[in-house]
Amino acid sequence: MSDFFPVLRVLGALLTFFSLGMFVPWIISWTHADGLRHVWAFSAAISFACGAALWGGLRRYKRELQPRHGIFLVSLTWVLLPLFATLPMMWALNDIGRPINFTHAYFESVSGLTTTGATVLARLDALPVSINVWRTFLQWLGGMGILVLAVAILPLLGVGGSQLFKAEVAGPIKDSKLTPRVKETAKGLWGIYATFSAACFLAYWAGGMSAIDAMMHMFTTVSLGGLSSHDASFAYFASPLLEGIAVIFMLAASCNFALYFIALRKGHWRGFWRDPELRGTLAALVGGGLVVALVLLAKGVYGPVDALRYGMFHAISVGSTTGFAIVDYLAWPVFAPLFMLLLSSVATSAGSAGCGIKMVRVLILVKQARREMTRLVHPRAVQPVTLGAMVVDHRVIFSVLAFMLVYGVTTISLSMLLVLSDLDPVTAFSAVLASVNCTGPGLGSVGPAGNFSVLTDFQVWVCTFAMVLGRLELLSFIALLTPSFWRK
Amino acid sequence: MSDFFPVLRVLGALLTFFSLGMFVPWIISWTHADGLRHVWAFSAAISFACGAALWGGLRRYKRELQPRHGIFLVSLTWVLLPLFATLPMMWALNDIGRPINFTHAYFESVSGLTTTGATVLARLDALPVSINVWRTFLQWLGGMGILVLAVAILPLLGVGGSQLFKAEVAGPIKDSKLTPRVKETAKGLWGIYATFSAACFLAYWAGGMSAIDAMMHMFTTVSLGGLSSHDASFAYFASPLLEGIAVIFMLAASCNFALYFIALRKGHWRGFWRDPELRGTLAALVGGGLVVALVLLAKGVYGPVDALRYGMFHAISVGSTTGFAIVDYLAWPVFAPLFMLLLSSVATSAGSAGCGIKMVRVLILVKQARREMTRLVHPRAVQPVTLGAMVVDHRVIFSVLAFMLVYGVTTISLSMLLVLSDLDPVTAFSAVLASVNCTGPGLGSVGPAGNFSVLTDFQVWVCTFAMVLGRLELLSFIALLTPSFWRK
Ligand SMILES: [K+]
Ligand SMILES: [K+]
Repeated sequence: MSDFFPVLRVLGALLTFFSLGMFVPWIISWTHADGLRHVWAFSAAISFACGAALWGGLRRYKRELQPRHGIFLVSLTWVLLPLFATLPMMWALNDIGRPINFTHAYFESVSGLTTTGATVLARLDALPVSINVWRTFLQWLGGMGILVLAVAILPLLGVGGSQLFKAEVAGPIKDSKLTPRVKETAKGLWGIYATFSAACFLAYWAGGMSAIDAMMHMFTTVSLGGLSSHDASFAYFASPLLEGIAVIFMLAASCNFALYFIALRKGHWRGFWRDPELRGTLAALVGGGLVVALVLLAKGVYGPVDALRYGMFHAISVGSTTGFAIVDYLAWPVFAPLFMLLLSSVATSAGSAGCGIKMVRVLILVKQARREMTRLVHPRAVQPVTLGAMVVDHRVIFSVLAFMLVYGVTTISLSMLLVLSDLDPVTAFSAVLASVNCTGPGLGSVGPAGNFSVLTDFQVWVCTFAMVLGRLELLSFIALLTPSFWRK
Repeated sequence: MSDFFPVLRVLGALLTFFSLGMFVPWIISWTHADGLRHVWAFSAAISFACGAALWGGLRRYKRELQPRHGIFLVSLTWVLLPLFATLPMMWALNDIGRPINFTHAYFESVSGLTTTGATVLARLDALPVSINVWRTFLQWLGGMGILVLAVAILPLLGVGGSQLFKAEVAGPIKDSKLTPRVKETAKGLWGIYATFSAACFLAYWAGGMSAIDAMMHMFTTVSLGGLSSHDASFAYFASPLLEGIAVIFMLAASCNFALYFIALRKGHWRGFWRDPELRGTLAALVGGGLVVALVLLAKGVYGPVDALRYGMFHAISVGSTTGFAIVDYLAWPVFAPLFMLLLSSVATSAGSAGCGIKMVRVLILVKQARREMTRLVHPRAVQPVTLGAMVVDHRVIFSVLAFMLVYGVTTISLSMLLVLSDLDPVTAFSAVLASVNCTGPGLGSVGPAGNFSVLTDFQVWVCTFAMVLGRLELLSFIALLTPSFWRK
């Protein structure tokens, strides 16, 4: 057990910093006088105290972390931080006379921090503004945390997507590397994230949102989170301009943040546009939008202009795992929402706040499959798998294979568990996909106009578990279940 | 083009032999006097003439086949033979005043030869006996063809499952090898197949079936085909004894036929029972039966005895890709039929007449994933993937990876095509899975009590394509689409 004390020490530090985040809704509660200041202040104090106690109490255990420690740390973070985010959520909702149970509150917190954006709450417009700020700010924090995880911490652990990621940046832009030290890398990425956030906020504000709406929707756009302060989501604004701004920022945020970092640092953008994953992500999202638009047009749902507007917006919103909606797209022919949900499994880049399989894995799988085809015809052909200018190592291909198996088995098993609990197959599979890809809205009863509160507590827990698994790139969590993990 | 003449020559030979198969329904038509003798006689004559013309006309092109020729031959065989099987099917049904269109007739023939067992025909009990004999005999022929393909021809081409298969038999039973020459191997396997067939026929007959029913159901049991001469399928007999016999032969036929061959040849069975794929297949089918039985019991569908009887029979029937039914199991909680359909994707062994992913690939995937988990925790660990006593080569793992990608992409794309054509998602996905796994009955409108004739012609063609793809182990057909295939 004491083997894991250094992990708990770091966790204490993370919780301490996290508690400071509660000052954002506290400030909003103060400026907007929504009567919930005490909730945020006391929750922050409790979280700070717990974090600081853990951090300080275990300060003797400052030690270099090993891979298994890293896996443990990351897994525990995504389980524990939502717990402390749940405290003010339950408290505040209770104080305004709309209490929710722990299952729902924890789900809402996990959905926030993992940037999933599924919700069990209704009548969002009637909520005190600080609650909505907290919900959306959780996504922004989660997005930031993921970037550091994906770019700075996970590569050190050699975990799935990050391994790929390392390979990725080493490829087309071989001469320059990400700043090798974790701290500096993290700072650089946060710089990009902050710049994007500021730009997105200003664009929304200039485009006609109120300042507070611009902030909340900025929070959930750059993090690909998709929560909104309005029940109508983006339809509330009824503004093609704002929809266009959202599309641009969702596209930008679906790409690898490290590419921006490197391009800005080097001052030229040639390598940026040549990056195969970036091209893949943009092609998938824009191409997906065209497919949906064509289907809507061909099936006579809309005329050409509306088909393009609604098709593009929703395909990019759902495909990028964000999940904003302007219309209840479940009323469309079922091909469209299903296609968009599947798109969200593959479209986003590693090194973004997106979830799911990630474009880089898709590219490796396709190239590897193409090589096998050639081998069928020319058995003696020797051909490496390449991505951009780089040869993909066998170990990376093996890790992609393992990821795909775990992804498939997890998705199917959790869906079957929901089916066993008497959920219909379409709702079950889409709820799990929407959770494991951190997309948010699914199909059936958990669609964009529906709500995860129709599920039983058991079903909500399954989805909560799926969100955490998806966020952890699956493997790292599953690794916890292997006996070799617990052997010293 | 002349490059492919040697392929057409072999195809001519195959067609010539295939035409002889039409004498089976001809004999039955004669002994049962069902008035269709002319159909079988003329169809046989036409097929024989076409085959012989092709064979004879291209006799100058007798040449050693290269891998690309083999792929072309195999693909063309599964497209062309059903075409000639369609001729008497349409003719006979037309003569009895129940004409069907070409789309349906071709579907029925492909469903027969690929051992899928999906049907567009209704009122089977009212059909002239020779038509039912032809339908079921097609499955028996198809099963035999697959065994030779899988065991004797495909390994020479290095195609997917067969490459695995080579690896497989080289493993636990390293010292003995399948007789190296194709002809001898094929003879040995046909010997096993014939022995199984004789035993199954006698068991069914002794168990209470009429001789003709015993023959037809033997045809579709040992080939894991699942067609029946009765609308009620196995419920017609209402005999737990016959159901038990079917279960035993379905289990036996789901295993690798080469294992029987080797065990019989060597005269001892230790290696047989130690084979990891055999254990995997039996565990999956029997374990799957227990799961279904438990679910039926827990959900209060049946008492313990009936839950075990119906759960076991249907899980093994569907899971082994056979598809016999005693009850309309779509009335069960949807978990059960969905679970059985998924089981049919993975349960059967390579070297059986089963279809889908095959147990050997599942085992390799699982072991490979387990290795990656260990690597996450101990990055420097070097650990080969083993199956039984054998180390699985990297190339095999890569080919499994490619297969899984093509399997996933094919299944999802074809399902989405059906959804696009306005089929509901559950029917669409299950129809494609039931086709690509050669299972037969799906869910929704294409369930065990339903029928593929509810689909539009376009949808029927998609399913036909899926059956052929599944039978070709996907890769070989997809290889036809790569440019390098057509380059000399
Ligand atoms: K989301
Ligand atoms: K079948």
